[in-house]
Amino acid sequence: MNAVSQADLQVCAAALDAVRARAPRVHCITNSVVQNFTANVLLAFGAIPSMTINPDEIGDFVGGADALLLNLGTVDADRKAAIPIALTTARRKTLPVVLDPVFIDRSPGRAEFARDLISQGGMIVRGNGNEWNALLDNRASAGGPTDLDPRLKNFVQDSPHNGDPAAGRIAVVTGPQDLVVGTGQSMAVAGGHPFMAMVTGVGCAQAALMGALAACCQSRFHAALAGLLVFALCGERAARSASGPGTFEPEFLDALYRVNADDIAAMETGK
Amino acid sequence: MNAVSQADLQVCAAALDAVRARAPRVHCITNSVVQNFTANVLLAFGAIPSMTINPDEIGDFVGGADALLLNLGTVDADRKAAIPIALTTARRKTLPVVLDPVFIDRSPGRAEFARDLISQGGMIVRGNGNEWNALLDNRASAGGPTDLDPRLKNFVQDSPHNGDPAAGRIAVVTGPQDLVVGTGQSMAVAGGHPFMAMVTGVGCAQAALMGALAACCQSRFHAALAGLLVFALCGERAARSASGPGTFEPEFLDALYRVNADDIAAMETGK
Amino acid sequence: MNAVSQADLQVCAAALDAVRARAPRVHCITNSVVQNFTANVLLAFGAIPSMTINPDEIGDFVGGADALLLNLGTVDADRKAAIPIALTTARRKTLPVVLDPVFIDRSPGRAEFARDLISQGGMIVRGNGNEWNALLDNRASAGGPTDLDPRLKNFVQDSPHNGDPAAGRIAVVTGPQDLVVGTGQSMAVAGGHPFMAMVTGVGCAQAALMGALAACCQSRFHAALAGLLVFALCGERAARSASGPGTFEPEFLDALYRVNADDIAAMETGK
Repeated sequence: MNAVSQADLQVCAAALDAVRARAPRVHCITNSVVQNFTANVLLAFGAIPSMTINPDEIGDFVGGADALLLNLGTVDADRKAAIPIALTTARRKTLPVVLDPVFIDRSPGRAEFARDLISQGGMIVRGNGNEWNALLDNRASAGGPTDLDPRLKNFVQDSPHNGDPAAGRIAVVTGPQDLVVGTGQSMAVAGGHPFMAMVTGVGCAQAALMGALAACCQSRFHAALAGLLVFALCGERAARSASGPGTFEPEFLDALYRVNADDIAAMETGK
Repeated sequence: MNAVSQADLQVCAAALDAVRARAPRVHCITNSVVQNFTANVLLAFGAIPSMTINPDEIGDFVGGADALLLNLGTVDADRKAAIPIALTTARRKTLPVVLDPVFIDRSPGRAEFARDLISQGGMIVRGNGNEWNALLDNRASAGGPTDLDPRLKNFVQDSPHNGDPAAGRIAVVTGPQDLVVGTGQSMAVAGGHPFMAMVTGVGCAQAALMGALAACCQSRFHAALAGLLVFALCGERAARSASGPGTFEPEFLDALYRVNADDIAAMETGK
Repeated sequence: MNAVSQADLQVCAAALDAVRARAPRVHCITNSVVQNFTANVLLAFGAIPSMTINPDEIGDFVGGADALLLNLGTVDADRKAAIPIALTTARRKTLPVVLDPVFIDRSPGRAEFARDLISQGGMIVRGNGNEWNALLDNRASAGGPTDLDPRLKNFVQDSPHNGDPAAGRIAVVTGPQDLVVGTGQSMAVAGGHPFMAMVTGVGCAQAALMGALAACCQSRFHAALAGLLVFALCGERAARSASGPGTFEPEFLDALYRVNADDIAAMETGK
């Protein structure tokens, strides 16, 4: 595990500034439960969402986007038809791709679908401990998160685009302490607040934000790290003004709107 | 009509505590308008939502759930294909099922679909006066809610699982005064606030909450009653901090997060 | 360009009062991202939303509605099948129709679909500058909004129901200054707040509100104008209580709930 250095924080802070300057477009094929919140997270932070899942249009939308999010939360027939077209378009344009394999620990078929997507090229994969266990073990969740770390290192080294670090795999495990693992480096981020697990779609929206950051940052590892840092900080700030998960949600969006590069650069990490 | 006794309140309070202790999973096949709010209501109260409508996955998800919600608000082809699979799985596992026949007074075909689901076994059915009239009369809403009570008594006694009270029908009619009717008993609950009718999905989310409570309570009648009590109390509390339906929504979620068993046990009812 | 006169404000104020008195039903075929917010905007303002997109039911729902909204934000196969049925039903009942051609500047196929709908009869069409350029030029956005005005005048005069002003086209262009153009008249409305562009669906919900107002107002031009005035005023009011786009959203709904006819009649416009 590497400590998050001042240099790392500076790279993340610069990615935040770049999002504000460039307003990247993130096309999100995401589940129907969290589309609204995900769009609001991207808008509050300075990015531009689009969300169509129509196979006839998806090529046009991804072709005009700067990043692609694939969230498997409600993968129906339309989404399953749209995802391959979107992924092919994203590859052709070398867009950053973020995969959020929601609830693959609940459905073997969904886990298989996620593994197939991952086999097709480099991407940021963000999941919780149960989802990672299902992904890595080819079976329902069993092993605890404590043994995830070495398996994640194999996962990122096993990337089909291993020679090109920019196109490789980045693994993000969220939990009480978040973990980001790339080729040759891994870092942990603490912080956030329990209310974040009581608002649906916080994790899903984080994956979308990582797409926006990756569109504006050479290092996908640092884009993922920045997504963890931004959410940890904004979650803490929002919780101070909230009296429960209901009032937390608007406060969290406000925090995303107000957070700036200096805030990120000043974070204390590596505890 | 029976008065809500102290003993009834105690059963409802215990159901609330059991939800917090067990975090039941509620699989919701619900309309696309209210998925987000329904998920947030369940999370704020301590339950775990899942929402896929993909027929290929629905069996896995309901098989791992503790209760099933069927909401007919936007019954498209996918939902119509998923519902029978979900219901069969729920029956096999003897999960509690809650049906919310949204807007069946607007569409004869939807009303027919609701009646067919109800004929298949015991469940909690929650609707407003118009929806109940459409359900019971086999025609568009006409009769006023004043004559609902005897018809509801027939409805619950006519249950296909009449011999087993736990598997029978529970009828819930929402309105200025809510009504819950089971085999041999019926109770009324007053309270709440007009803002609850100005936020989309409050009733839909209440049906989901009844599923969570029914997963943790031997008596489905009391699970439904608890759902009415919790919403009446939290609606009143949230309205005190709200200046309109917009600020009511986050305050309502906070109230669901904070309400505890003592609050329910101390409610004055039977007015 | 005509100034918004006291008489115009009075017509708009009367439309607001009529919505509160009649609670018109607005059937919304709208994109999945904004369904919840659109429903809450209509409810807060005093109208009744319905949102099914199932082709089997859409005739029943539009047949019982007072206005129809067609929003092209996520036009999937279901929506494409439902829209012609809905539009035919609306025409037969002479309901007001509002079209929101979301993101047609991103997809030539979607722009073509929008033009086909517009060719079928009079309606209110609401879009931003990019969407109007795509609509009017039969190609991706290119011309600036400064030359929109004369093209909009041609657009409304070219209406297939030109002889009947009530059935003609109304063009609404939203931006820092909004514009409404009808046969022989056009007006501008300033106001609002930048937070309105940072909450997904504000424009989409405005189109739905125009449907509610058009159901209660002889002049569709003034219904559209009222929709612009109400949002400009409520946006300004909500921003005063908000610290970012997150807290803006509930405050905006509260403002829609509280705004009254006197507020509209007292607006200063024609600046």
